[in-house]
Amino acid sequence: MEETLTSLEILQKAIKSEVEAFQFYNKLQEVVENKVLKKKLNFLKREEKKHEKLLRNIFKNQFPKEKIKLPKKGFTPLPTIEKIEKLSLESLLEAAMEAEEISEKFYRENSILINDENSKRLLIYLSSMEKSHYQILKTEYDLLTSFTSYEAYKKFSLEHLGP
Amino acid sequence: MEETLTSLEILQKAIKSEVEAFQFYNKLQEVVENKVLKKKLNFLKREEKKHEKLLRNIFKNQFPKEKIKLPKKGFTPLPTIEKIEKLSLESLLEAAMEAEEISEKFYRENSILINDENSKRLLIYLSSMEKSHYQILKTEYDLLTSFTSYEAYKKFSLEHLGP
Repeated sequence: MEETLTSLEILQKAIKSEVEAFQFYNKLQEVVENKVLKKKLNFLKREEKKHEKLLRNIFKNQFPKEKIKLPKKGFTPLPTIEKIEKLSLESLLEAAMEAEEISEKFYRENSILINDENSKRLLIYLSSMEKSHYQILKTEYDLLTSFTSYEAYKKFSLEHLGP
Repeated sequence: MEETLTSLEILQKAIKSEVEAFQFYNKLQEVVENKVLKKKLNFLKREEKKHEKLLRNIFKNQFPKEKIKLPKKGFTPLPTIEKIEKLSLESLLEAAMEAEEISEKFYRENSILINDENSKRLLIYLSSMEKSHYQILKTEYDLLTSFTSYEAYKKFSLEHLGP
């Protein structure tokens, strides 16, 4: 049975998820060698940081008397930081794409449960931004998987997409 | 009847379209007051500049002996620079979204006509990037159109998405 979250819990879980997404992209951009992808991951990392801020503001508006208590885990199933160096880039991009899809759905579905009109708008806005993130990752994923090896992809990126 | 373009003409038309898209976003980012949107348009503008470069490189690889001759118009129906200040933000975003959709289709369809494997890959890559651009614009468009006035949208952006 799925647990029913209160809007306070939803927001806390969302903040935690954005923190985790930031940490994930932050580590991933350190690890990847391809500069084009590194830049894209840096962009995504900064976006997730902005989302965290935005959610903290929604929380403050909705629950001015409450303190934010982050749960142990967010709602996205991202690999732990320790695992990042052990996984292939293909698996990492797949995990990130899945997390963005789940985020998109989470924000869209939960926007219905929030009464305040502006907070609702912001959740829909976040949902739509996660959809762009998914597409940014998919562009890179499709390019990577069009090659038979990671080395061939790296060589192509360096030669055609610039250093 | 639709005209059939050679791969040389396709590339020249694509380069011209990216130049036009760059000019469009460049002017639009000057005109909009909302800082979040301004940043996004700046991002899009820089991306189109990179696409132009990428296409020029494909051209050089495919036709090392030819000089690039840009046609009068690209393939995207963007408003002229003079019209930008006369149109509503809603119409401008709609035009930009349509242009990104047409670009996505144009690159995907024409990737089939190019023989060289790497140039083909790059056109598919461009197509997929235009899809992300569409989604970035749609996020902002949906937010804008959720308000009854441009002023309300501007006020919301300033208060909730930061200066």
